[in-house]
Amino acid sequence: MKLTKEDLQLISNTIKVLSMDAVQRANSGHPGMPMGCSDIAAVLWTKILNHNPDDPDWVNRDRFILSAGHGSMLLYSVLYLSGYSLDIEDLKSFRQPGSLTPGHPEYKHTRGVETTTGPLGQGFANGIGMAIAGKIFKEEFSQSSDLIDHYIYALVSDGDIMEGISSEAASIAGHLGLGEIIYIYDSNRISIEGSTNLTFSEDVALRFNSCNWHVQQINGHDHEEIEDAVLKGQKETGKPSIIIARTSIAKGSPNKENSAESHGAPLGEDEVKAVKRNMGWDENKTFYVPERVYEIFDQRKEELHKIYNEWNDLFEKTISGELKDKWNRYFTKPDIRSLRGKIPAFETGSKIATRSAGGKVLEVLYKKLPNLMGGSADLAPSNKTLVKGYRESGKNSIGRNIHFGIREHSMGAIQNGIAYYGGLIPFSATFLVFMDYMRPPMRIAALSGLHTVYVFTHDSFFVGEDGPTHQPVEQIASARAIPELHVIRPADAEETKEAWLAAIDRSNGPTMLVLTRQNLPVLERGKISSPEDLHKGAYIIYDTEKKPDIIILASGSEVHISIEAAKELKQTGIDARVVSFPSWELFDLQSEQYRESVVPPRIPCAVVEAGIKMGWEKYSGKDALFITLERFGASAPGEELAKIFGFTKENIAERVKEYLSKL
Amino acid sequence: MKLTKEDLQLISNTIKVLSMDAVQRANSGHPGMPMGCSDIAAVLWTKILNHNPDDPDWVNRDRFILSAGHGSMLLYSVLYLSGYSLDIEDLKSFRQPGSLTPGHPEYKHTRGVETTTGPLGQGFANGIGMAIAGKIFKEEFSQSSDLIDHYIYALVSDGDIMEGISSEAASIAGHLGLGEIIYIYDSNRISIEGSTNLTFSEDVALRFNSCNWHVQQINGHDHEEIEDAVLKGQKETGKPSIIIARTSIAKGSPNKENSAESHGAPLGEDEVKAVKRNMGWDENKTFYVPERVYEIFDQRKEELHKIYNEWNDLFEKTISGELKDKWNRYFTKPDIRSLRGKIPAFETGSKIATRSAGGKVLEVLYKKLPNLMGGSADLAPSNKTLVKGYRESGKNSIGRNIHFGIREHSMGAIQNGIAYYGGLIPFSATFLVFMDYMRPPMRIAALSGLHTVYVFTHDSFFVGEDGPTHQPVEQIASARAIPELHVIRPADAEETKEAWLAAIDRSNGPTMLVLTRQNLPVLERGKISSPEDLHKGAYIIYDTEKKPDIIILASGSEVHISIEAAKELKQTGIDARVVSFPSWELFDLQSEQYRESVVPPRIPCAVVEAGIKMGWEKYSGKDALFITLERFGASAPGEELAKIFGFTKENIAERVKEYLSKL
Repeated sequence: MKLTKEDLQLISNTIKVLSMDAVQRANSGHPGMPMGCSDIAAVLWTKILNHNPDDPDWVNRDRFILSAGHGSMLLYSVLYLSGYSLDIEDLKSFRQPGSLTPGHPEYKHTRGVETTTGPLGQGFANGIGMAIAGKIFKEEFSQSSDLIDHYIYALVSDGDIMEGISSEAASIAGHLGLGEIIYIYDSNRISIEGSTNLTFSEDVALRFNSCNWHVQQINGHDHEEIEDAVLKGQKETGKPSIIIARTSIAKGSPNKENSAESHGAPLGEDEVKAVKRNMGWDENKTFYVPERVYEIFDQRKEELHKIYNEWNDLFEKTISGELKDKWNRYFTKPDIRSLRGKIPAFETGSKIATRSAGGKVLEVLYKKLPNLMGGSADLAPSNKTLVKGYRESGKNSIGRNIHFGIREHSMGAIQNGIAYYGGLIPFSATFLVFMDYMRPPMRIAALSGLHTVYVFTHDSFFVGEDGPTHQPVEQIASARAIPELHVIRPADAEETKEAWLAAIDRSNGPTMLVLTRQNLPVLERGKISSPEDLHKGAYIIYDTEKKPDIIILASGSEVHISIEAAKELKQTGIDARVVSFPSWELFDLQSEQYRESVVPPRIPCAVVEAGIKMGWEKYSGKDALFITLERFGASAPGEELAKIFGFTKENIAERVKEYLSKL
Repeated sequence: MKLTKEDLQLISNTIKVLSMDAVQRANSGHPGMPMGCSDIAAVLWTKILNHNPDDPDWVNRDRFILSAGHGSMLLYSVLYLSGYSLDIEDLKSFRQPGSLTPGHPEYKHTRGVETTTGPLGQGFANGIGMAIAGKIFKEEFSQSSDLIDHYIYALVSDGDIMEGISSEAASIAGHLGLGEIIYIYDSNRISIEGSTNLTFSEDVALRFNSCNWHVQQINGHDHEEIEDAVLKGQKETGKPSIIIARTSIAKGSPNKENSAESHGAPLGEDEVKAVKRNMGWDENKTFYVPERVYEIFDQRKEELHKIYNEWNDLFEKTISGELKDKWNRYFTKPDIRSLRGKIPAFETGSKIATRSAGGKVLEVLYKKLPNLMGGSADLAPSNKTLVKGYRESGKNSIGRNIHFGIREHSMGAIQNGIAYYGGLIPFSATFLVFMDYMRPPMRIAALSGLHTVYVFTHDSFFVGEDGPTHQPVEQIASARAIPELHVIRPADAEETKEAWLAAIDRSNGPTMLVLTRQNLPVLERGKISSPEDLHKGAYIIYDTEKKPDIIILASGSEVHISIEAAKELKQTGIDARVVSFPSWELFDLQSEQYRESVVPPRIPCAVVEAGIKMGWEKYSGKDALFITLERFGASAPGEELAKIFGFTKENIAERVKEYLSKL
């Protein structure tokens, strides 16, 4: 499409006006960034981005990430102009209850929003995940065609660049040679506390050079420079690109351009008018869009439809037969009943760590689910997550086995990017204690309903000699605290199989598997239960014929010692029921009737878990017996710590007896 | 001290032997790193480091951080040889219960260990904090002398360099021009999954150049090169230094040198013997230290004592009178009763956000406590944490107001470094929701008993328009989950004052203050309570004359609406007690008698907190009424969300009535 200089300026001005008007009306928001980046957005959304407002899920679209999510009005403005399902009223209800235009972009909430952003650095890393996903699709479906042939654009801010996650993500992106990445760095040199000079004097170009990126530096308000740089970035196919665009925050504001004041507060009625006057617009009109701008975007939409239709033709030609079946499997929810049948049973009584069981399950799942992929932050041999026989990532290459390096935070956000991309099920892995390093992207996965799986092994003090820095104590509780995250801590290999199946089955949210380092017996279940009961969150795994004197609620490695303790208690005339309780969230989804059948009211309870007790009271009552760990761990062999911390069948039996005798 | 080539080799070999023997005996640990870095350690601990094994707290000592904490045997070996209070039996009980030689170095556990390390990247950032602390000391006490004149050394690994936190910390260190920093990068190019080539192809020299570091590259096994590089690093006073030392992991092991196998597992008896044979040592001796090595370290200790004594003379000469008083105040626990008197009271009934009250308290504390310092991750204007009238950090300069930049993770670890240094009380600040970015160093502060303070504002959905990415829901619960961390959420300005005093008073562990964005009334307390009751964790702030029908447990911004609800309930004949419950941890420290006087058993409870309920059951019982938020927030004005989410006096009163009617 041929656009004049004036056309582009008009669009840029329109974005400025919509953004500052919306922020002003909401009396809340961030006008400075949209105004500073309106020139970049004008070029991208009229001349560069391939997408289809009528099919936002089109696989081969270019992705656009607003990593600086606080500039949300920039995105809403261009989505509105491009013809996504937003209307001017939506812009007017910016940041209001129930509106389609929340303060920060929310995935699944507003059509055309590719990622939930706001927490800085996340979007930067999400894009790396999308590029990895694109490479996988290209490899699997499009080796001899241009079927998968798109770019990942992001607008990143000083804040994104300062957060460590962007260094991690840049390092792995450069290593993998992700040429699809074209990031524009809005270098406005203003942060909330003032000039970035207060804290930031990196040579950003050199930094990205050191990570194997293609680096350009431009004036972020010059439309030609912007377009040229993007086109050069497209040509650089072996390296990710960053375009360092020098911009002025709140560009066009006579009194607030280049000022930190414009970052996070409305400009004020007078200043808004002054901006409009300055650009020769009617200062009394709000939310005004010139006809010519609508015309341009209508024309762009036609162009885009043409591109989209051509792609669909190519798709029909390229993807057929077996390839079509495979494609469909990427986009169809797997049938876990059929999957279950493919996974060999673990022999009752044999001993195997749940991390190892997880590894064996993963081998089968890789074979059956071609869209399952992931890896570890340099702990694959410990997490048991590298699946032999499938390609591994490396210098300039991608495979379904990703080596993330020692970069947990970006691993989590890259994983989110893969999930945002669609069609793939990404997992990541590390030690449970290092979940703390990747909590921010896990929260966003939960908030955005992403299908991600976390494999966290070495799940308690049973880690042993590595000591308290490596022994989780509060991590399981702190994971349970995250809304919408399912946490599953299986008791043995058979439950581990079911836990993986639950994670595969839950396509609208993240699931975290909590696995042991140490061996555990595969449990004897008799007739009262089956491993499939894991999907109910908790179930009776050992019972007495009489009404129980006590109900022991246990998870993970504490289930088998609880059963042994119950057997010992039986000898002394105490009837104990043991409930295997792998998942609070799954249990909470069951009927009240079921829940009360497992943990009937008014029977004394004990909780046995090698972590803090916090929150267990909701099932056990506050006066239950808690055999938990309310302190940091210690460095010693796991079995010795078990004695010191009281996680032995003898101690459990003893404490139960004592507890019941005092009731 | 003159040492021959052979002497240094002998020391290096001794470190190798002690390390691999200890790991072998424990049958657990990491021999590869200590063997690969024994040459570096030999040079540092005989020719470079100024310290005093008999006074590990000596302020002007050089600090040595083993950021690659898994190589703990390296550190234990040199601490032992240097004459710290470790004996050979301690090395033999490496990783055993109760030993002084745990798997990863633990601060306060082993004399001479400067930092708790293991979680990668933390040590790297801790050192930056120590250098900042040193600058403050130099500025305050030693402008015209060499009283504070030391270096911060660290041994950092590939893992440290890959973690994003090290990029953040390197960026701020270069900006601040911390010439005291001399880091040696153990570039062995081996990680757990194999060669670092799998994931890492940065030009590390260029990367550190881009952050204004002084960069050298050496052979990490050449003693002369090591010494020369360190001396050059010392001369570079305006920039932090990194020495990229090319090393071989497990250097000297005939079969495991340069292999990932040597990273995290014992070499095996045969290989241990082979190493000893290789270096011409008796393969049957374990934990053997040649006499010459003891001799060298004895001599070194004498030299060090001389240096130490000279410094003490200088101290006596330099630090006297007022300066001596000031010095003493740095190392004396403040008297909070006297501090309290200096802080003006907040007027009952007036309205002020607790973040603003916190800011006002901080102003007084800065005046009265010259060793209090800190800052925000670019949110000072929102956190209210920049104290006017005191120097601010900037390019090549440090002040008590630190601008951390948008780098929460390294902020937390730098803060730990300041606390490790001694004498200073560091605080950091950000939005509560971004606590997730800095959880790993907070955990270590708790584990290591560091005196750190966290000021986390914008503590609930009352943040409003910024939406769910910026609204904490689970953060308070997830903070309470961390052992040894005190979490305080004050209900008004007066409680905020006391919360700050509690944080100052708690010198053996971290305290986190949870403050509002929105205004809150300064509460009317009458005769039944005083703000000082905050130190008890929970107290009755509103009561009825009769035995209460219900006890409302509330914290922070929910206390005043709970009191209003109680007043409304009174009109309908329901007697409600309101307990202001700012801190679980402080409450748990009280006597059972006190706790039962506040929350007597068998009276129905309600919990009102704008976050998840998890864990409150331990005070309220599981069948209590929970007016909490079990979902992510939403973007809208805070007051509107309060109605939607039910945090209004009307809804509380209504729900209580309904709840009691069903009992």
